[in-house]
Amino acid sequence: MSDVARVAGVSVTTVSYVLSGKRAVAESTSQAVHRAVDELGFTLNTAARTLRTGRSNLVALVVPDIANPFYAQLAAGLEERLRGPGYHVVICNTQARRPLELAFLADVVEQRFAGVVITPFRLKAADFEPVRAAGIPVVVSADHWLDGLDQVVPDAVAAVRAAVEHAVASGRLRIGMIAGPRDAQGGDPRLDLLRVQAAEAGYAVPEEFVVRGEHTREAGDAGFTRLMSRPVHPDVIFCVNDVTAVGALDAAERLGVQVPEDVALVGHDDVVFASLVRPRLTTLRYPPLDVGHAAAALLTERSEGRVHSRTHRIPVTFVQRSTF
Amino acid sequence: MSDVARVAGVSVTTVSYVLSGKRAVAESTSQAVHRAVDELGFTLNTAARTLRTGRSNLVALVVPDIANPFYAQLAAGLEERLRGPGYHVVICNTQARRPLELAFLADVVEQRFAGVVITPFRLKAADFEPVRAAGIPVVVSADHWLDGLDQVVPDAVAAVRAAVEHAVASGRLRIGMIAGPRDAQGGDPRLDLLRVQAAEAGYAVPEEFVVRGEHTREAGDAGFTRLMSRPVHPDVIFCVNDVTAVGALDAAERLGVQVPEDVALVGHDDVVFASLVRPRLTTLRYPPLDVGHAAAALLTERSEGRVHSRTHRIPVTFVQRSTF
Repeated sequence: MSDVARVAGVSVTTVSYVLSGKRAVAESTSQAVHRAVDELGFTLNTAARTLRTGRSNLVALVVPDIANPFYAQLAAGLEERLRGPGYHVVICNTQARRPLELAFLADVVEQRFAGVVITPFRLKAADFEPVRAAGIPVVVSADHWLDGLDQVVPDAVAAVRAAVEHAVASGRLRIGMIAGPRDAQGGDPRLDLLRVQAAEAGYAVPEEFVVRGEHTREAGDAGFTRLMSRPVHPDVIFCVNDVTAVGALDAAERLGVQVPEDVALVGHDDVVFASLVRPRLTTLRYPPLDVGHAAAALLTERSEGRVHSRTHRIPVTFVQRSTF
Repeated sequence: MSDVARVAGVSVTTVSYVLSGKRAVAESTSQAVHRAVDELGFTLNTAARTLRTGRSNLVALVVPDIANPFYAQLAAGLEERLRGPGYHVVICNTQARRPLELAFLADVVEQRFAGVVITPFRLKAADFEPVRAAGIPVVVSADHWLDGLDQVVPDAVAAVRAAVEHAVASGRLRIGMIAGPRDAQGGDPRLDLLRVQAAEAGYAVPEEFVVRGEHTREAGDAGFTRLMSRPVHPDVIFCVNDVTAVGALDAAERLGVQVPEDVALVGHDDVVFASLVRPRLTTLRYPPLDVGHAAAALLTERSEGRVHSRTHRIPVTFVQRSTF
C-alpha cells in the first residue's frame, strides 16, 4: 500500500480511503491512486475488501480425504452452488486427525474465511468456539450432533429398518458391522442406529460381530478379515461407508469368501463405484451431491443473517444390488 | 483498518506500518495496535500480507470436474505437498467450458493467487498472458504443449507401443479410439500418439474407427454405441481416460457386447475404480497422485525464483487386466 501511495504521490491514509471507499476523496486523487494500482500491476480489491469487511470469499471444505469419492462429489456440489455468489472452495484434507482438524480451523479464523463445511472426526463442540466467536458460519456434515451448529445429516431410520427387515426375512440373523473408529467424537451413530433397528426387529448386534476402524478401504479389508476369523461369524455385515465395503470385498476375494452366499454386505453412501464393483454393492444411498447443495444453502442463509441453527435432513434409501 | 486505528488511538498510516512491519514503530504503539486488532476480533495478518506482498497463499486447481477421481486424487497429491509451505488449494470446476476457464483465470489475477495448476481444454497459450503478466506461476497438467509454461505431461510412448504390440500379437488389427473433443485446444494428443505407434507397427487408426466427445462416462457410452453400430467395428478400442472406458463398459453391457471377446478396451489413468469394475479395466497407468506432487514441486520452484519453464514427465505403464 505504501508503494501505491508513493507512486500516486498521496499518503497511505488517502490510499486506504480510496480503496476502502470509506471516505469521499477528490476524483483526481482517486484516479491517481487507481492509476498507481494499475501501474504496479496489483489488483488489490480482494485483499482490501478482506481488510475492510473482515471477511474473505473463501469457504473451507474440511474433510478426511478429498480422494474419497463421497467427499469429491460433495465438493463438486458445494462448488457448483457457491461459484455464483462468488465464493471459492478450499480443500482441507485432515486424514481424520485431530491436529490437522484444529490447524485448519485456526487457518479459517486467521484468514477470515467466509465459512466452513466440515466433517469432523476428533473435534468437540468446544473446538468450534474460536470460529463461532469470529462470526464465521460453520456447517457440519456428520451423523452425530454438535450443539448450536448448522448441520447436514442423513435421515436413515427407514432405510436401515428396511435393510434389517430384509436380513430377518432372508434368515440372516447374525448381524455385524465394520464401524467407524472407537475414539471418534460422537462414537459411531451408524452403529447405534443399526443396533436400535435390529433391537426393534428382536435381534442384537453383539460386540463380537462389531469391528472398528477408520473409514478407509484398508480398514474395511482388515475388519472383514477379523470378523471372518471368529469362531462364529456374521452372515450380514453393514459397513460404515462404501469405501470400507470395497475393502471388505477385497478381503472376501483374497480369503475365498463368497459374497453374498457366505456373507452379505451393505455399504453406505452409494458413491460412483458402488454400482461398478462386482458383485454390485447393496448400499444405503446418501447422495453426496445433495449434501454439498444443502451445505451451500445453509451457509448462504447464515451469511444472509439467519441467527438460529438449522438442520437439513437428507433421506437415505436402501438400494438393493448383488451383495445382499 | 480505520477501525483498528480508532480503537488503538493511532493513525491509519501507523496501523499500516505495524501490520506490514515496513517501518519501525515504538513498542508501545505496536502493542496498542495489536491489542486493537485482537479486540476487534480481526486477525488481519493474511489480508495485510496480501496487500504487502501482492500475493495470497491460494493455489487454484482449475480442472473440468473434481468429482472425476483422476482430478480428486491429483487434488489430494497437490494439497498434501502444498500444506506444509502454507498454501491452500482452491477448487475450480470448469466443466471443460471456455467461459468458466477464463473466469477462473481472471479470479486468479484479481485475487492475487500464489499459483495455478490447470488442465485447460479450450484455452490458448495467449489466454494465460494476464496471469503471466501478473507474475503468477502456472503449471499445466495436459498432454499438449503450451509455450513457455511449466507442465506435467505423461510420457506414454513406450506404454502405447506395448499396447499396440499386444494388439498386433493377438490379431486385433482394427484399432479404434474413443477420443477427446474435436474442438479442444491442442486436439487429442492421445489419439495422435496412438496413430503414430500404430503406424510404426504397420497399421492405421482409420477415421471411421474414431469417435470424439468430452472426457465423461456419458461420452464413453455414446461413443462405444456409435462405434459398434458401424458395418465393420474396431476389435480393440482405446479410451481417452478410464471414466470414458467405464461408459463404454456401460454400453457394452446394455448392447450385449462381450468385452474382451467381441471387442477389447484400454483405458487411461488407472483411477481407483479401474481395478474395481468387471471385467477389470486394462489401462495406461498415469498416476494422479504423482501428477499432483510434480505440479506442487514445479510451483514451489517457480515461487523460489526459477526463471525458465520446466517440464516434468511422468512415465506411463501398460497395465493388463481383463478387458484386453
